[in-house]
Amino acid sequence: MKRVLIIGIGAGDPDHLTFQAAKAIAAADVFFVLDKGEVKGDLVRLRQHLIETHAAGPYRIVTEQDPERDRTTPAYAAAVEDWRARRAAIYGRLIREELADGQTGAFLVWGDPGLYDSTIAIVEEVADGSFEYAVVPGISSVAALTARHRTSLTQVARPVHLTTGRRLAEDGPGADDVLVMLDARTAFDGLDDFHIYWGAYLGTPDEILIEGPVAEVAEQIKQVRAEARARKGWIMDTYLLRRIRKAEHPES
Amino acid sequence: MKRVLIIGIGAGDPDHLTFQAAKAIAAADVFFVLDKGEVKGDLVRLRQHLIETHAAGPYRIVTEQDPERDRTTPAYAAAVEDWRARRAAIYGRLIREELADGQTGAFLVWGDPGLYDSTIAIVEEVADGSFEYAVVPGISSVAALTARHRTSLTQVARPVHLTTGRRLAEDGPGADDVLVMLDARTAFDGLDDFHIYWGAYLGTPDEILIEGPVAEVAEQIKQVRAEARARKGWIMDTYLLRRIRKAEHPES
Repeated sequence: MKRVLIIGIGAGDPDHLTFQAAKAIAAADVFFVLDKGEVKGDLVRLRQHLIETHAAGPYRIVTEQDPERDRTTPAYAAAVEDWRARRAAIYGRLIREELADGQTGAFLVWGDPGLYDSTIAIVEEVADGSFEYAVVPGISSVAALTARHRTSLTQVARPVHLTTGRRLAEDGPGADDVLVMLDARTAFDGLDDFHIYWGAYLGTPDEILIEGPVAEVAEQIKQVRAEARARKGWIMDTYLLRRIRKAEHPES
Repeated sequence: MKRVLIIGIGAGDPDHLTFQAAKAIAAADVFFVLDKGEVKGDLVRLRQHLIETHAAGPYRIVTEQDPERDRTTPAYAAAVEDWRARRAAIYGRLIREELADGQTGAFLVWGDPGLYDSTIAIVEEVADGSFEYAVVPGISSVAALTARHRTSLTQVARPVHLTTGRRLAEDGPGADDVLVMLDARTAFDGLDDFHIYWGAYLGTPDEILIEGPVAEVAEQIKQVRAEARARKGWIMDTYLLRRIRKAEHPES
């Protein structure tokens, strides 16, 4: 029997790794790496560092070109589905051809594999009985964000909405507490009833944190974000929006 | 200057601990433990085990009786506020009286400190400039739940709602994907349009996982839950509800 591990490796800080994840890395014979190109070289190096630090025996790294996703189409879900199908073909072949019976293969996933990541769904899709698989949870960018801002995702007895930048732009906040991921176009802009806790490159030496009423800090975030993105060639950011309670701001 | 660390220690599995959390434990001189009584002895022992395993030097554990929360009143938020105020008085005194200048005190928090936990808010409330504080993120019961069920919290390009059992009962699901915590009364019962991924005592040897359409597994979960709670004297469970898509169930 082959075994596949989907390992959450945290949001960017090597010390986000759990002991469970370190043991899973140590147990792996083959690491599967989907190469997203030079753009995210920092992340590739960090992943390499984690493998070198925690591997316990001989291992191989098998790198494949990550298929391009069509980012020009308005049919977002369909484009993602197509991208996922092409990835599934690659994942299936990697497990079939690169993993011997009795061996363990590992996919290292940024953050937590359960949060806006397709690896679990793809592995489930290609599961054909020839391998077993397990998931190791990781520190998500959500947990990293709130920890660094020293605030809670949730307020007492209140719900919180997790969504994407695209959905925020299309549907509006829809709740008093909203956590936004994958926002390529600063959809928080104009939500002046909210306080924002924003973070980029969380857990890394490049980490940036900005917090304040959206009305006061939106321009600053947009500027800092554009500069950082230009400088590094990529950005990963996330933010928490919390509706400003009137009682706390009697002047409004 | 004194330093206070609020350390997420994961959902129950000692190996959920991150290297960052282990280093934070090693840096602590004093651990503050709010004793919730004999009921959760398992959790106290696990916390003790983590301290013994990762402490790097001499340390003290200061235990205080956790104030009782009034669970009989319908004024949930007010009761929690009152409870929080009494906890704040205790936390303030602990930091003032039990921590010497230059020392580091630690609160160990189950799961992630940002998710339905009041420690961050309380420490912020008592922060008077005499100490600095930081938060170390942890593996939440949400990440543990979805990992064990080998499913994602989020579906492609879709939002997810995090809420409490009380709010679910009062407000309804309010979304197609709902993560429910702190549900003392099985509020999922009757939500027959949903698939449920349920887990209790996640990450511990007592872990229980049940998954299926609510219509098919609700009774089983209620029975298993009542039995486990009677046997152990307490239960901590959480679950993900995902609306069943018609296309996947053409018979419905």
